Amino acid sequence: MKPRIITLLTDFGSRDYFVGAMKGAILSINPHALIIDITHEIPPQDIEAAAFNLLATYKDFPAGTIHLAVVDPGVGSTRKPILIECGEQFFVGPDNGIFSWICEREGSSRVIHLTNEAFFRQPVSKTFHGRDIFAPVAAALSTGVATTEFGEKLSAYVSLDPLAPAVRSDGTIEGRLIHIDRFGNCITSLTSTHFSADHVAAGAKLRINGRELISFRQSFSEGAVDRDDLFCLVGSAGFLEITARNSSAARVLNAEPGHRVIVVIKAR
Amino acid sequence: MKPRIITLLTDFGSRDYFVGAMKGAILSINPHALIIDITHEIPPQDIEAAAFNLLATYKDFPAGTIHLAVVDPGVGSTRKPILIECGEQFFVGPDNGIFSWICEREGSSRVIHLTNEAFFRQPVSKTFHGRDIFAPVAAALSTGVATTEFGEKLSAYVSLDPLAPAVRSDGTIEGRLIHIDRFGNCITSLTSTHFSADHVAAGAKLRINGRELISFRQSFSEGAVDRDDLFCLVGSAGFLEITARNSSAARVLNAEPGHRVIVVIKAR
Amino acid sequence: MKPRIITLLTDFGSRDYFVGAMKGAILSINPHALIIDITHEIPPQDIEAAAFNLLATYKDFPAGTIHLAVVDPGVGSTRKPILIECGEQFFVGPDNGIFSWICEREGSSRVIHLTNEAFFRQPVSKTFHGRDIFAPVAAALSTGVATTEFGEKLSAYVSLDPLAPAVRSDGTIEGRLIHIDRFGNCITSLTSTHFSADHVAAGAKLRINGRELISFRQSFSEGAVDRDDLFCLVGSAGFLEITARNSSAARVLNAEPGHRVIVVIKAR
Repeated sequence: MKPRIITLLTDFGSRDYFVGAMKGAILSINPHALIIDITHEIPPQDIEAAAFNLLATYKDFPAGTIHLAVVDPGVGSTRKPILIECGEQFFVGPDNGIFSWICEREGSSRVIHLTNEAFFRQPVSKTFHGRDIFAPVAAALSTGVATTEFGEKLSAYVSLDPLAPAVRSDGTIEGRLIHIDRFGNCITSLTSTHFSADHVAAGAKLRINGRELISFRQSFSEGAVDRDDLFCLVGSAGFLEITARNSSAARVLNAEPGHRVIVVIKAR
Repeated sequence: MKPRIITLLTDFGSRDYFVGAMKGAILSINPHALIIDITHEIPPQDIEAAAFNLLATYKDFPAGTIHLAVVDPGVGSTRKPILIECGEQFFVGPDNGIFSWICEREGSSRVIHLTNEAFFRQPVSKTFHGRDIFAPVAAALSTGVATTEFGEKLSAYVSLDPLAPAVRSDGTIEGRLIHIDRFGNCITSLTSTHFSADHVAAGAKLRINGRELISFRQSFSEGAVDRDDLFCLVGSAGFLEITARNSSAARVLNAEPGHRVIVVIKAR
Repeated sequence: MKPRIITLLTDFGSRDYFVGAMKGAILSINPHALIIDITHEIPPQDIEAAAFNLLATYKDFPAGTIHLAVVDPGVGSTRKPILIECGEQFFVGPDNGIFSWICEREGSSRVIHLTNEAFFRQPVSKTFHGRDIFAPVAAALSTGVATTEFGEKLSAYVSLDPLAPAVRSDGTIEGRLIHIDRFGNCITSLTSTHFSADHVAAGAKLRINGRELISFRQSFSEGAVDRDDLFCLVGSAGFLEITARNSSAARVLNAEPGHRVIVVIKAR
């Protein structure tokens, strides 16, 4: 029998006992669960960073994987704890948009409001639902409990601004930076359908923070470029990235998540 | 059969091979051990931080779990390597107080001096007992070796200053900061029996670093408070915490572990 | 049956989805693989730091372990993806020298050029061979696929500068700093055969960055030394280290990896 995988993605950092507490809570319920850390270094309370990183990797895991994501500034408030079934995988966490880009991509999803306290660790604290609600529910789910046991179906859930870029009547496309990675690569919400070498050949440019980009590479090591030269490539998450060889594109551009990225079409 | 869980808590950081070496040493003896990282980011040589983080989470793990904790400034000196059986769990590490708060809470414990070198990795280095003594002993224990095989029983062990706050004749209670977490929350040695909304209603105040606190919240997200407003809550580890919404209470208070926290009773 | 261990060592950091993606890729092929993190905090693109850390710990793992190491500045270029069988263990990663110190120590090795795309994740990106080539190959290897299935044997591979220090005709020995650990200890390429208390007794000195060292200790806690006093010891990786009690030797010496370390023999 295959072990049941539970991934963890949080903003808890790795200095404190928080991640250990969630793992202990899982293993107390299902000692056979296979716990896999995605990251615990999401910037504190940065729901978009969490949403992007999970979006970028959930498809790498086998069907049936349970993704436990806890970036939860609203813990203890009225925000709902939820379970989503989507893309043959399961997602457990707060209803604050953290899973909405995955639902947007997959198209269809089933959302459960976690209300059945029989599956919670008692007493439930007001400050650590990762340990007291989400980890125990994920662990119970990994033992084969049916999703309907955890609560009622919800017809709506909280969504982040959609990833899909806005296309204006003049053909201009407006996207945004959704993430900056460890190496300073700037991941945009654009894909190769919005901006590619073909678009550049037809006169298009990418505009960000007062700079215009028309260079493409296929990999970080391709071509002999100056250290701070910026170029575009399609990154491993499937999005257009702005990058600089052996340097941080984010530093060169003074870029931050949320900054606008515009594809400008050649004036006729 | 349930896998045997071995948790790791160290100050080794995650940049070097140290943690990998301990895991390799464990798996070379018991490839079926289930190794769970609690944290490796304890500040170097900070025994109290290690003691607090383990205290805050050991109870989340199932009975029989083996907790391997290595913050060991005395490695290579005469400090003893020990194994403690306590609260239905096992603790392996240096005899420097790292487990004493758990023993203080549990009341009863059995302590073994690790002297049987047959269970050590040979040759034993003078600088890395985590790999050469503690990991192999934990691994052997996880295979079912009886605790008495590892050495003689000890009647005493090194203790940290007890967690229990001092209560003075005038009713004033003196505790201290025992930890500051990633979010800047200040965890005190006090609990709700020492300071709560009821005590405040009766005129009590919490004094720390020249500030007086009388506000309570049940969660981080409760109420509309200013960014730097400080308030108290009972944190997920069961201790009274001083916190600030969307801000670092430690920064606001210029607080560090060890600072005194005083509950002052209303003068009559 | 023993689980098959796959260790991970990368410069991907722990902030992004990269490590999670590799783990997902492995578990999609072999859900029974036992994935063990060595470190993901190798400084970006620092092949020598990766080579040292793997050298320092691969022997701690049982025979048959698969070590997956991805520090890969040449990803997307013509650098070869390889699999090495050496010292009863397996090594999967880029052909950039990352495994050469292990091959140097073991003496004999068998190197395979990974060309059989049937074992790759499709489509293969130009930027993330960790997920698309190395993880799937390691996972397939862990299921029992023969090494010869992955590609042709290579007669040569890229090597780093050898670890062995240069010995000059006058007896002077020239090594270098190969790593600085979290605690600021400076690990050299020398061993106790090059410099020891016996050599000091015969008049030898260790010279680095304008300082001369003649002190030896057996452990960090031995002797009562001043905070910034430097001394030598044989570290847990088997190399001579320069260290300072309760202080960072690297800071005291202003030392960086690559700096020369000279053993000077007494003039007669």
